[in-house]
Amino acid sequence: MALSDRTLLGPGPSNPYPEAVLGLSAPILGHLDPEFISVLDRVCDRLRTVWGTANPLTMPLSGTGSLGMEAAFANTVRPGDTVVIAVNGLFGRRMSEVAARYGAEVVAVEHAFGEPVDVQRVLDAHPSPAIVAAVHAETSTGVLSDIGALGAAVHERSEETLLVADCVTSLGGTEVAADDWGIDIGYSGTQKCLGVPPGLAPFTFSERAWRRRVETPPVWYIDLGLLGAYVRGGPGGRAYHHTAPVGMIAALDAALERITAEGTAEVAARHRAAGARLQDGLEDMGLELFAAKGHRLPQLTSVKVPDGVDSAKVRGRLLDEYGIEIGAGVAEYASTVWRIGLMGHNARPDRAELVLAALREVLGR
Amino acid sequence: MALSDRTLLGPGPSNPYPEAVLGLSAPILGHLDPEFISVLDRVCDRLRTVWGTANPLTMPLSGTGSLGMEAAFANTVRPGDTVVIAVNGLFGRRMSEVAARYGAEVVAVEHAFGEPVDVQRVLDAHPSPAIVAAVHAETSTGVLSDIGALGAAVHERSEETLLVADCVTSLGGTEVAADDWGIDIGYSGTQKCLGVPPGLAPFTFSERAWRRRVETPPVWYIDLGLLGAYVRGGPGGRAYHHTAPVGMIAALDAALERITAEGTAEVAARHRAAGARLQDGLEDMGLELFAAKGHRLPQLTSVKVPDGVDSAKVRGRLLDEYGIEIGAGVAEYASTVWRIGLMGHNARPDRAELVLAALREVLGR
Repeated sequence: MALSDRTLLGPGPSNPYPEAVLGLSAPILGHLDPEFISVLDRVCDRLRTVWGTANPLTMPLSGTGSLGMEAAFANTVRPGDTVVIAVNGLFGRRMSEVAARYGAEVVAVEHAFGEPVDVQRVLDAHPSPAIVAAVHAETSTGVLSDIGALGAAVHERSEETLLVADCVTSLGGTEVAADDWGIDIGYSGTQKCLGVPPGLAPFTFSERAWRRRVETPPVWYIDLGLLGAYVRGGPGGRAYHHTAPVGMIAALDAALERITAEGTAEVAARHRAAGARLQDGLEDMGLELFAAKGHRLPQLTSVKVPDGVDSAKVRGRLLDEYGIEIGAGVAEYASTVWRIGLMGHNARPDRAELVLAALREVLGR
Repeated sequence: MALSDRTLLGPGPSNPYPEAVLGLSAPILGHLDPEFISVLDRVCDRLRTVWGTANPLTMPLSGTGSLGMEAAFANTVRPGDTVVIAVNGLFGRRMSEVAARYGAEVVAVEHAFGEPVDVQRVLDAHPSPAIVAAVHAETSTGVLSDIGALGAAVHERSEETLLVADCVTSLGGTEVAADDWGIDIGYSGTQKCLGVPPGLAPFTFSERAWRRRVETPPVWYIDLGLLGAYVRGGPGGRAYHHTAPVGMIAALDAALERITAEGTAEVAARHRAAGARLQDGLEDMGLELFAAKGHRLPQLTSVKVPDGVDSAKVRGRLLDEYGIEIGAGVAEYASTVWRIGLMGHNARPDRAELVLAALREVLGR
């Protein structure tokens, strides 16, 4: 059967960087091989660069971005802890569900979908939460929130509160400055702006988070005490925890080499340029953007489906006739919003023009 | 920097089948793309073949084999449940630790390392456990246990008890007959006899397990209710849970195509032939095998380090001079046992002869 070669302009996965594809086909090394340990150390260093952090515990977790979310709460929530969560999309909702499974008293601060996080409302929700959590780049709505402002406010009020930030759709596309912003626990996924196939969750955990962590979390697989003994090593060397996904880590290494060589600021500028071109083009076509003006992600554009247009039929035609995948909306916006991603290797003007041209044809505009 | 091309003859990862490497470099598809859903369905079908099961809930979990162990207990243990675990190596110990994190009252039935599971002792350990768990192929010791005999005994005594089997090192190398043997929950990893890089956990869950499952497990990422809605679909189609590692799943698909074309019985015979050649050769060299005779895994041979020989130095020379990785022992046998794997693509006479020749040289035998 012939293979299809899609142009992946949905909310992720994106088409990987060519370097990542080459990295995937490198010979497999053992997870305790000194050469692999060098690769892992380099990946952790490069992740520190894109996260903007000096955290020793910065590494790829062995699962997709959602496992990063799980690890954030599994290692920090004690039953009865108050966790304030800014909910302005599906992934804020998901955080609430995951935190609750670990026994958190979740205070969800609901925002209209399409709006950024309101720092004051989050602060006012509870005077002394154990954790405050928010999504930097809401994949479900295409909205960017100001995590730096949230971090400053949270930490100014208390040295004890931990800040969790979901950076699944931002890392590698929008600049993240975890240390400057006061992010204590950050997680991401590889299949969006980092330009690697799905399967790893880049993760960072601050010294403050380490001091306040749950020593024996309910989940063994993402127990940071055990993982740290492998990733950081100790007096006895690297302690085996589980077999690291060595091939995926080599692919991430290759993509991070490309991203850091281009420069994180330059990569972010490339995403902004591509996103602006797409968003201008959509408005020129008479379409209405969904996310609040001034808070739109360049790497993921949400746009309203015009009245009378069948969302699924348009997506189907783009896929079948043009090989282009774009995303539906989520939850209550499933059939009234489209999501168009220009992430990682796809953050380029030609991809913006391609999807605009295809949409013009299909919509007859 | 030049890439090293290792011959991976340790306890895993093994060198992947060439088909799996090709599968990895296939174009990435979206996780909701109809073409990817076909790939996923085919993978689940092929997994049912190698598992020897008709279980609808048979799929690759998005993490390494250890995530499979976590999912087995996360979805079945209620606090206070009695879980009888046969411990005849590191992975039985690990099962005990993981089950305990979910609140199990663990009854560990300790065996000497190197011995197979004693069915009667496991039965006698508790009259009515909720779960009985054992390792089919102990990666830490090279021992094969009779899961079919254990399953028959457990289910004859009670229709209610669930049987968990760790098949990380057996699946794809030794025949597994999950339905015939009464395995309710089985998990594996891709990086051993299945001949795929590490990153997925093939998993199967019986109807009996489904009826007795924890409806809202503490861990969201491996909640089988949510995962089932994506993998099996429902009236509304495939419900998004998390972004499936599409590239790894394509690689698994390619390896399973090869394995099922060769035939699972033929693949097992190939593993037996390679393992016998290696084990005979080691004994001819005057080395002593560690695992009990009659219960030795062909795909993973444990052998005692001769007196006066520095285990780590030998492994280092094999790696540096021959590019061959073999494994150390684990726990109390770390420096007194080697583990030599002939798994998946490496289950071949030439690989057996290669490691024998290299060992002869290095040991001066």
